[in-house]
Amino acid sequence: MEYRAPAPENSAPLSVGQIAEMVGGSVEGNAEVLISGVQSMEGANADDAVYLSPGAPKAVQHSYQNCRAGLVFAHPGADLKTAVCCIRVPQPALAAALLSQHFHLAQPRLTGIHKHAEVDDRARVGAGVTLHRGVVLGPGVVIGDGCVLHPGVVIYPGVSLGAGCVVHANAVIGSDGFGYEWSGQGHEKVPQIGAVEIGRGVEIGACTTIDRGTFGATRIGDGCIIDNQVQIGHNCQIGRFVVLCAQVGLSGSTEVGDGAILGGRAASVGHLRIGAGVRMAGAAVATKDVPDGMTVGGYPAWDIRLEQRMQARIRRMAR
Amino acid sequence: MEYRAPAPENSAPLSVGQIAEMVGGSVEGNAEVLISGVQSMEGANADDAVYLSPGAPKAVQHSYQNCRAGLVFAHPGADLKTAVCCIRVPQPALAAALLSQHFHLAQPRLTGIHKHAEVDDRARVGAGVTLHRGVVLGPGVVIGDGCVLHPGVVIYPGVSLGAGCVVHANAVIGSDGFGYEWSGQGHEKVPQIGAVEIGRGVEIGACTTIDRGTFGATRIGDGCIIDNQVQIGHNCQIGRFVVLCAQVGLSGSTEVGDGAILGGRAASVGHLRIGAGVRMAGAAVATKDVPDGMTVGGYPAWDIRLEQRMQARIRRMAR
Amino acid sequence: MEYRAPAPENSAPLSVGQIAEMVGGSVEGNAEVLISGVQSMEGANADDAVYLSPGAPKAVQHSYQNCRAGLVFAHPGADLKTAVCCIRVPQPALAAALLSQHFHLAQPRLTGIHKHAEVDDRARVGAGVTLHRGVVLGPGVVIGDGCVLHPGVVIYPGVSLGAGCVVHANAVIGSDGFGYEWSGQGHEKVPQIGAVEIGRGVEIGACTTIDRGTFGATRIGDGCIIDNQVQIGHNCQIGRFVVLCAQVGLSGSTEVGDGAILGGRAASVGHLRIGAGVRMAGAAVATKDVPDGMTVGGYPAWDIRLEQRMQARIRRMAR
Repeated sequence: MEYRAPAPENSAPLSVGQIAEMVGGSVEGNAEVLISGVQSMEGANADDAVYLSPGAPKAVQHSYQNCRAGLVFAHPGADLKTAVCCIRVPQPALAAALLSQHFHLAQPRLTGIHKHAEVDDRARVGAGVTLHRGVVLGPGVVIGDGCVLHPGVVIYPGVSLGAGCVVHANAVIGSDGFGYEWSGQGHEKVPQIGAVEIGRGVEIGACTTIDRGTFGATRIGDGCIIDNQVQIGHNCQIGRFVVLCAQVGLSGSTEVGDGAILGGRAASVGHLRIGAGVRMAGAAVATKDVPDGMTVGGYPAWDIRLEQRMQARIRRMAR
Repeated sequence: MEYRAPAPENSAPLSVGQIAEMVGGSVEGNAEVLISGVQSMEGANADDAVYLSPGAPKAVQHSYQNCRAGLVFAHPGADLKTAVCCIRVPQPALAAALLSQHFHLAQPRLTGIHKHAEVDDRARVGAGVTLHRGVVLGPGVVIGDGCVLHPGVVIYPGVSLGAGCVVHANAVIGSDGFGYEWSGQGHEKVPQIGAVEIGRGVEIGACTTIDRGTFGATRIGDGCIIDNQVQIGHNCQIGRFVVLCAQVGLSGSTEVGDGAILGGRAASVGHLRIGAGVRMAGAAVATKDVPDGMTVGGYPAWDIRLEQRMQARIRRMAR
Repeated sequence: MEYRAPAPENSAPLSVGQIAEMVGGSVEGNAEVLISGVQSMEGANADDAVYLSPGAPKAVQHSYQNCRAGLVFAHPGADLKTAVCCIRVPQPALAAALLSQHFHLAQPRLTGIHKHAEVDDRARVGAGVTLHRGVVLGPGVVIGDGCVLHPGVVIYPGVSLGAGCVVHANAVIGSDGFGYEWSGQGHEKVPQIGAVEIGRGVEIGACTTIDRGTFGATRIGDGCIIDNQVQIGHNCQIGRFVVLCAQVGLSGSTEVGDGAILGGRAASVGHLRIGAGVRMAGAAVATKDVPDGMTVGGYPAWDIRLEQRMQARIRRMAR
């Protein structure tokens, strides 16, 4: 298997009418205008689409009136005059993301296994996978179809990734969990004989580390997005579509329910459950279970409104 | 020197009687039962051993009554009925760890230097060492007997590791300390001409970084265990058997006494001493010396009981 | 292009007189004494220079009286008796740094591209660059003259580094920003089509990660110094001579003004400005703009004096 040349990007422009159909929106203005990319408002040219966030203040809304972009995605309620060609959609940012996906691949996409990637004989690699330079797959590793592993990614023995995962450079999956017992003479290592099981469509950031289980597996559900420098301890059980922002740290055996969103550097002391749909503020530290759907902050993490009220009071004392 | 095939794991089962002798415990039940591994209670089969933690609640103790495991390690005081084959030991988890060490190596253990590891001519590598793919040893590096360096580990010039160390993937040892002087025109770099000296039997986690000393050495004592994504600044002096959990950050010239345990993301502002046997709560930040044996939390770190009392009071104010 | 042998270090000794001329100071004592290196006071020999910090307590000042060093850099006001050969300068540590730069290179300095570094055909590499083993440069990468990239550094497509940058091992520059839109069925990736533009003379620590922009570039100004395990989100705009200590985390679109100093693990929630010359205490978290020149601490970050007063009050409550 060899590196194959990247597929050409989708550079043929689309008309505003075609785009409206693609994203399920309604056109205001000239549906014949041709668009060939997505940009920020500042960087946009006449053949670019931009989007206006629904909650943007009036001044920002007005700046979109006069931008050079050929197309603005906007919420039905946004105050945009007819000078601008516009597609109305409930989620303008989502429409822009989908259009950008059409035009751009995030990276030039080679397919194949770089000659300086290393795949153990006992590893299994799916179809359409990209293993960049210096990737190492240990014995028993399973890589699903269409995965992309960037340079320097190390996958320890026995780890499995579902189809369509992306792992950024120098991330490490399946290193030993941190388990020792003090003997009186030293820290005796608890052999880490579990694995890591990662679902489909998971994206994992650069220099992120995910430890293997002590006995059973560390698990990451389908569709999770995990930023850079996240640390996931042994035997964590992460649900589906969970968001872990940069520098999050989850101690061993933390459970995280579906759709939870952990802000940058949020953490857990381990052996507890962060419920489905929970939102943790940046740097919040869970020291006990967090019920489903709750929004928490602080250390120990508790109701974010209480945290904010407490901060307001103790700060008032100091003024 | 070539990669050699892994030694076969110790798969021959042991009898409960043999195990009792190995771990120094007393048997209750049939000493002839054969055991071939260690597992969690949930994953155990009839030929597996499990362990019951001394402090486990009654309900957990009872669940061990009915588990499928062939052997339970338990504290002499644990309430286990005779249906279960049991070895009584003061530290059940330690007994399980030692038995697991017998059966399993944490990773399939190759010995030798991978053809894509790079060893400078002036580096010295001991006997029975494993250097995985992409490991780089600079000039003057010394690697003690039996060390294992996982893929992508980078050891800068002049760093030494004692016998029996394990370094996980993409860790970096000996990168420049963070030393500069402002000249009025820019930050003038202070050349980092010291080294890193690591003792025997130290384990270092994935993506951990340990800086070289500015002049003298950064030192890590024998038997320390260091988790993933730990940052150790230049000229830190870490004693023996110290525990640094994930994401700990020690600023330059921090001293840590023997046997101290720093919870996840604990930190020090540098140029201070964290005493022997100290315990720091997760995310605690030491801003001045911490006396031997103290347990601290908070930022600035202080007596953990005061921290907890303070948190209780300020939180009560907000309710 | 091949690895070339390192230039020999500057080992010829200098006289104290020559050094005084180099650093712009005045000699007290014998200007003929020969010096061949810089050391800490504890490690110094008769041919070494050391420096005495201006603010050092009397006891430390006196210890310099009796040290073995051949030369002490000291502030004009420091109380040093004539037994010691001394150069008076306003910034002793800076003088020592400049002298140490003369004698020592921080690392043995090879020049060239290691045969196991990978440079895409469409990347441009300047003169006198060192690319160590396992470095990967994607398409469109530009590396300025004299840069040093340590082993395992990964530079994604389209990233540019100015002249004289140093990037430590396993750092990652240009990985995808963390941008997604929830579709109701999953997190739709926002293609990250921007780049990273790094100025001249920037030093970047081991395992640090810098994300590419979503549309426009993430920018790091000239002369910044960035420690290990720092995370810089997409579209951050970092000014000149900014100092980011270890484990700092900047969320997307954070602006940092010239000369700001962020202590270890300081952070920003993103989409805000940390002003020029700001100083953030370790682990401080900016949740809104920080005005130029301010010194802040705490989370949310505010005036450091208020933070300290508040801490004093709430701690008094608990005693």
